[in-house]
Amino acid sequence: MHMIPVETDILQANQHWADDNREAFLRYGVYVVNLMSAPGAGKTTVLEKTIGRLKDDYRLGVIEGDLVTTIDADRIAALGVPSYQITTGTVCHLDARMVHNAIHEFKIKDLNLLFIENVGNLVCPAEFELGEDLKIMVYSTVDGAEKPKKYPLMFHEADAVILNKIDLLPYSGVSLEELIRNVREVNPWAPIFPVSCLTGEGLSDWIAWFRLEIAEGNTRMRRRASAA
Amino acid sequence: MHMIPVETDILQANQHWADDNREAFLRYGVYVVNLMSAPGAGKTTVLEKTIGRLKDDYRLGVIEGDLVTTIDADRIAALGVPSYQITTGTVCHLDARMVHNAIHEFKIKDLNLLFIENVGNLVCPAEFELGEDLKIMVYSTVDGAEKPKKYPLMFHEADAVILNKIDLLPYSGVSLEELIRNVREVNPWAPIFPVSCLTGEGLSDWIAWFRLEIAEGNTRMRRRASAA
Repeated sequence: MHMIPVETDILQANQHWADDNREAFLRYGVYVVNLMSAPGAGKTTVLEKTIGRLKDDYRLGVIEGDLVTTIDADRIAALGVPSYQITTGTVCHLDARMVHNAIHEFKIKDLNLLFIENVGNLVCPAEFELGEDLKIMVYSTVDGAEKPKKYPLMFHEADAVILNKIDLLPYSGVSLEELIRNVREVNPWAPIFPVSCLTGEGLSDWIAWFRLEIAEGNTRMRRRASAA
Repeated sequence: MHMIPVETDILQANQHWADDNREAFLRYGVYVVNLMSAPGAGKTTVLEKTIGRLKDDYRLGVIEGDLVTTIDADRIAALGVPSYQITTGTVCHLDARMVHNAIHEFKIKDLNLLFIENVGNLVCPAEFELGEDLKIMVYSTVDGAEKPKKYPLMFHEADAVILNKIDLLPYSGVSLEELIRNVREVNPWAPIFPVSCLTGEGLSDWIAWFRLEIAEGNTRMRRRASAA
């Protein structure tokens, strides 16, 4: 994507669509989660594991964002969960208008829990509100301990940070303690869940927290306001 | 970064700066490499290993692109190699104008080999020519075998693909064969170097190829023309 002076206008226009989406989600009673990460951090795998544990209790749907393929949407559909693919072409993030258009294509009113899996990118998705209740970030621990310093915005914006692939930590030379310290530096409030989708370690903690958020109807705005 | 209708104009303007850069690099006799990857693939570590093996034979310099920190530039400076940091703020890639400005700040005329380490992003850096001779892509094998299908442009544009962290493959469930097959699907010509910066495996093959490219003054344009 390409930098231009009207950046602020674009973000303002996006906010308008995001507010519209939020209203629609409220109207239909859908709790909405925006899942963000760098490419290859394991968003889709975390989503598969999460869906596996929740699908008997919620009417689930998934909107997938990708540049070109439907690989991820196909993985979700294989779980028997309705999924809708947004292909962005060369655009490196989802914006609220893309989600707005997707809502019309998708049977949103039949759902009460909607995941939006963003394009794999550690930078731009963090700038675009989609109208979601929660922003969940997935990070691959083997990508290094210093990334929260180098890409602070997404870590800062996250309502929860899932540190994935901890099974690889013993072989990677990355310190989980240092990584958590660096996440804390840019985000003092979000819960941090070290997990392995391979062994299942840590997933129960994430699921327990997430179920509570849904049950209480917590939104990022409400949680940040009460933290302030 | 944010999608707007004048995308083509931006890429055209970028091309103008890239041509200017290329002219300057030719004039000063500097061979220039644009290093691209997703965040955490190990660009800086590959660069450190490469510098370690080349620094007695070339007058090296490094331009680092990052959103906010100088962590990577500091790592390069620690090797005794001149480094210059471009901090892009919220911009998710380097463009040719940023590099153009950096050239003036940097003693480019004292060098004969310049690395430009791009912002960690698997999408946008691939769209912006910088005036480089080679585009080298680093990919972390543990990020999965299917990414060349999902993010084809950078794999397609690369003059060589370094598949890093192969030491983690036995623990990751990722098939190197499938990954290589998927790279080949979008890029039939680039050499592929599976490497481990931890064990050193595969680095000699990459260095040998790279030295030859420099010696022959090969550029991506010349190599693609001869392949066509």
